[in-house]
Amino acid sequence: MNFLEEKILADGKVFEGNVLKVDNFLNHQIDIDVMRQVACEFKRRFKGIQVDKILTIEASGIAIAVMLAAMYDVPVVFAKKSQTVNSVDDKYVSQAYSFTHKKMNNVFVSRPYLSAGENILIVDDFLADGKAANALIDIVEQAGGHVVGVGVAIEKGQQNGGRDLRQRGIKLESLAIIESMDYATQKIIFRNQQ
Amino acid sequence: MNFLEEKILADGKVFEGNVLKVDNFLNHQIDIDVMRQVACEFKRRFKGIQVDKILTIEASGIAIAVMLAAMYDVPVVFAKKSQTVNSVDDKYVSQAYSFTHKKMNNVFVSRPYLSAGENILIVDDFLADGKAANALIDIVEQAGGHVVGVGVAIEKGQQNGGRDLRQRGIKLESLAIIESMDYATQKIIFRNQQ
Repeated sequence: MNFLEEKILADGKVFEGNVLKVDNFLNHQIDIDVMRQVACEFKRRFKGIQVDKILTIEASGIAIAVMLAAMYDVPVVFAKKSQTVNSVDDKYVSQAYSFTHKKMNNVFVSRPYLSAGENILIVDDFLADGKAANALIDIVEQAGGHVVGVGVAIEKGQQNGGRDLRQRGIKLESLAIIESMDYATQKIIFRNQQ
Repeated sequence: MNFLEEKILADGKVFEGNVLKVDNFLNHQIDIDVMRQVACEFKRRFKGIQVDKILTIEASGIAIAVMLAAMYDVPVVFAKKSQTVNSVDDKYVSQAYSFTHKKMNNVFVSRPYLSAGENILIVDDFLADGKAANALIDIVEQAGGHVVGVGVAIEKGQQNGGRDLRQRGIKLESLAIIESMDYATQKIIFRNQQ
């Protein structure tokens, strides 16, 4: 079991409706030591891959992206979410449904911050059905960039986002993959990644 | 002139309505080297002060908070914004008006992540009329914590947020204070902080 799986077992809480709350170390309070280890582990798993820029989506992806960018010494771009987009002239826009907020969001990046030919590593805290990751990939492709990988802290393996990305040939690295979790017993089982 | 003032002159853009756009290095694309210098400079300016936790507000404050927290080796808490709050039983809640989105937001932190007696350093990217900073201070005080300082990258000195915080005796450190800026000429003048 790796450091993140141990942390999830120690501090994560399972709620009804297949919800895992990790907001005491990942997405409300941020344990800086866990975040440093997350960044180090992504650096190791994507070793040898040229990364020109790190792309994430506000808000909770930013912490991971910044810690990792400090190791690569490359810029971060974080996509913004908005229900309305006045103009698409100056933006790359895609769409993603937010389960947390139960609404469809526009996801956008201002055009100057992604360029053709750039090697983009996408990171986020969670991957479930892949809506946010797919919106980010779409945006990179609109800009003519290359997605060199997707790194997520926690993949909810019961949903299809991870499987779909792997089937498309995208290099996806998930530091912890949840195979099953149970509200009644609070038992969490991880996929063996050996 | 310090590194941040130089960067603002080089890459900032003045828009009508007293708007300074710095989203190519601070709050959409993040220049990791500028961010590292921002964190180092806050560490220097708050030297000798005990900091137990760093508090910011989503989304653009997170990058600064995480870089600084890595230096202090303390947790970050980022306050969340929402137009609706279902329950206040488990949260500290305050209010702040967002000029960017032209609406009143609830700002909240889950109760377990702030405790009585903690020394809290508040950081953010911008300080204008101080609505967000005041909401964060209010939340820390509700929790019984001590605000040991407020650090912002850019203070808009024509608005009253900075003056009001200083008058209340709060240790405010602004890395760049804009005295005036002009859309027609794109001229930006900083307050001399020597």
